[in-house]
Amino acid sequence: MPASSLDPHRMIRELRELHALTSNAAGAQRVAFTPGWATARQWLRDKLSVLPVEVHQDAAGNLWATLQGTSDQALLIGGHLDSVPGGGWLDGTLNIVAGLEVLRRIASEGKPGVTVRLVDWADEEGARFGKSLFGSSAASGALAPDEIRNLTDQDGVRLIDALQQHGIDIDRARDARGELKNASAYLELHIEQGPVLESLDCPMGVVLGTYGVERHAITFTGQAAHAGSTPMTHRRDALAGASRLHLAIRDLAAKHGGVCTVGSVVTKPGIVTAVVGEAKLTLDQRHLDRNLLATLCAEARAISKQIAQEENISVSWKKILQIDPFHFDPRLISLADDANREICGKSHRLPSGPLHDATEMCRAGIPTAMLFVQSIGGQSHNRLEDTHEAHLELAVRCLDKLTAKTLAWIAGMSE
Amino acid sequence: MPASSLDPHRMIRELRELHALTSNAAGAQRVAFTPGWATARQWLRDKLSVLPVEVHQDAAGNLWATLQGTSDQALLIGGHLDSVPGGGWLDGTLNIVAGLEVLRRIASEGKPGVTVRLVDWADEEGARFGKSLFGSSAASGALAPDEIRNLTDQDGVRLIDALQQHGIDIDRARDARGELKNASAYLELHIEQGPVLESLDCPMGVVLGTYGVERHAITFTGQAAHAGSTPMTHRRDALAGASRLHLAIRDLAAKHGGVCTVGSVVTKPGIVTAVVGEAKLTLDQRHLDRNLLATLCAEARAISKQIAQEENISVSWKKILQIDPFHFDPRLISLADDANREICGKSHRLPSGPLHDATEMCRAGIPTAMLFVQSIGGQSHNRLEDTHEAHLELAVRCLDKLTAKTLAWIAGMSE
Repeated sequence: MPASSLDPHRMIRELRELHALTSNAAGAQRVAFTPGWATARQWLRDKLSVLPVEVHQDAAGNLWATLQGTSDQALLIGGHLDSVPGGGWLDGTLNIVAGLEVLRRIASEGKPGVTVRLVDWADEEGARFGKSLFGSSAASGALAPDEIRNLTDQDGVRLIDALQQHGIDIDRARDARGELKNASAYLELHIEQGPVLESLDCPMGVVLGTYGVERHAITFTGQAAHAGSTPMTHRRDALAGASRLHLAIRDLAAKHGGVCTVGSVVTKPGIVTAVVGEAKLTLDQRHLDRNLLATLCAEARAISKQIAQEENISVSWKKILQIDPFHFDPRLISLADDANREICGKSHRLPSGPLHDATEMCRAGIPTAMLFVQSIGGQSHNRLEDTHEAHLELAVRCLDKLTAKTLAWIAGMSE
Repeated sequence: MPASSLDPHRMIRELRELHALTSNAAGAQRVAFTPGWATARQWLRDKLSVLPVEVHQDAAGNLWATLQGTSDQALLIGGHLDSVPGGGWLDGTLNIVAGLEVLRRIASEGKPGVTVRLVDWADEEGARFGKSLFGSSAASGALAPDEIRNLTDQDGVRLIDALQQHGIDIDRARDARGELKNASAYLELHIEQGPVLESLDCPMGVVLGTYGVERHAITFTGQAAHAGSTPMTHRRDALAGASRLHLAIRDLAAKHGGVCTVGSVVTKPGIVTAVVGEAKLTLDQRHLDRNLLATLCAEARAISKQIAQEENISVSWKKILQIDPFHFDPRLISLADDANREICGKSHRLPSGPLHDATEMCRAGIPTAMLFVQSIGGQSHNRLEDTHEAHLELAVRCLDKLTAKTLAWIAGMSE
């Protein structure tokens, strides 16, 4: 095939084409293991069919397109076609369609020195069965089949049956690990899904890694009492625990970095004429540094006990979730910064709050980097999710530039 | 009939008898305008039938038992047989059964100088239709038939139909005002329903009046955002408004007196992974002083606006309810204090958070006083509501003593 240069406009056209094919008025409908997702997959296969790439689905349902190079050492570019129900047009698909465009550019130049592989991970969102990063965690080996074997969707359909319909045996899913055998680097491009780059007027960012997460349900228990007949000095107000802890965790984040969120407060009896007897809240704490994450959590716990003592109430903590932080590769982060600066004139390093498939590749020991492109208003996971077209053009050009730099880096390593 | 002294033990036996007749395992079942209430009313009529009293139901469904005196000037003793569903054995009934015992004692001594009337107010609790103080507010003239004409219970039964079944025409209810024509004083005995007397180890208290109430629904609106991808500095956390205002209103109550309560907080979207976009809370503020109540409310409003500005969120207030404070009669308060001290050796003056029928008599311009007897654990409106028997004995003796003092006071006025 004749050499052709990268075509950012084609990428945007294809993103719109894919969106038109797989969305309705409520937004994108490409939930993994549903017909909408299969439609998107077929669309991708059709696009790949004209390229000199080998295409197959692995044991975990991930779709691989391999442009064989002189060396078996491989650069992986990943993304995901699956969406949340009523999702946006860019979350996950941008990675795939930009990767497709980069693959076209490289393929048009003849057999590359290093093998280049595009992977469409299966069920990044976990929107239907509640298990996110299904395909990439199978490939990293982190997937525990027994922990998810009995999951069902809201209609009672079993995960294992939905998987089987798409040729996936849950007990063989981790065979996908074999796909990573020769992987020398992993790159991913994603919308930021946050407000940072927009607030800095910076189109592109480089992701330092994904936050570790400590997530707890916390219950303060006091004594429900009549709002009229109970003097302030006689109260055991459970809500005081929630209010004070909420304000305290903001101070902790200011002191130690990371983010701390009370996303939900539920009060009982929860009526206008009664002092709150029980206040349940959720606390989500995230940090890129493992030790500081532990500090955030330990200090919040200590403060909650101090508050409980002062308010004559009690407090209990229940762990919901714990995820380790993952740091992306410093050499690739540096290359990504360079790529962004060469294309956009500037770059910004930032952590990722949400997890991504890149986290699993990092866990698998593959040098990993991730690019973020600005999100308008930080919106995502809904049909309002958007990014300026000019920034989408920059995004694919940055990914292409980073790919070139990474291929050179891999080639340099193997010399 | 032969003179007989007051019998506190009989009163306790009769309270237990009435409770056994009108409760089940879940507690008292004497909701106004239901069969359980009618049973309690018939029980009272049977007890009154052996006394030299005239008994009738007025236009608002209040039951009056009149021991005619030499003078038409009347001392009223009031209470209510109706309960909340699953209520306790003392709330309202203590007033009636203690009043019955006092009436017996006076009647046994021959025709009194001043007329003595026992009134069982209809629907003090408002538990079924949501309109409390029905009978006493009809008598005071405060009842607005058009405001309650369309009320229904949770089964869709209309208030006006339930009233009609018990011989009450909503448009004639205020004719009950005629009952107050010769009223010179109103006395009521009630359980405290709060922790103050117990904490002071004081069996009996004197009520200064009933708190005025300012009740509002307050909504803070920020921006829901991803808990992982939104840095602390970029947040517009609506919950910050609720947490900060809740802590601020406690300071206001400490500064100005009265009580301030946030009884309910509702967070949206209310999930662990999102910054709160909207926080709704209820604020209940009460004070015996009209000006200080207005200050509590105005300062809370100003603080909420200041917080909203600082947090880059917005706040809106919606009034739920406003009730004026009522101050009971200082001369009768003094007599009540004397009665308590003579019987118990001590007394304590305190405001009432909950409203009582006494509030309506106060509104009607009748010199009013109220006695509180200690509640165990401040419990009420449930089957755990209780008062030590020794305190119940003191309570009826204090009411009797106060009645004697008040009758002398009325007689002195009319000389």
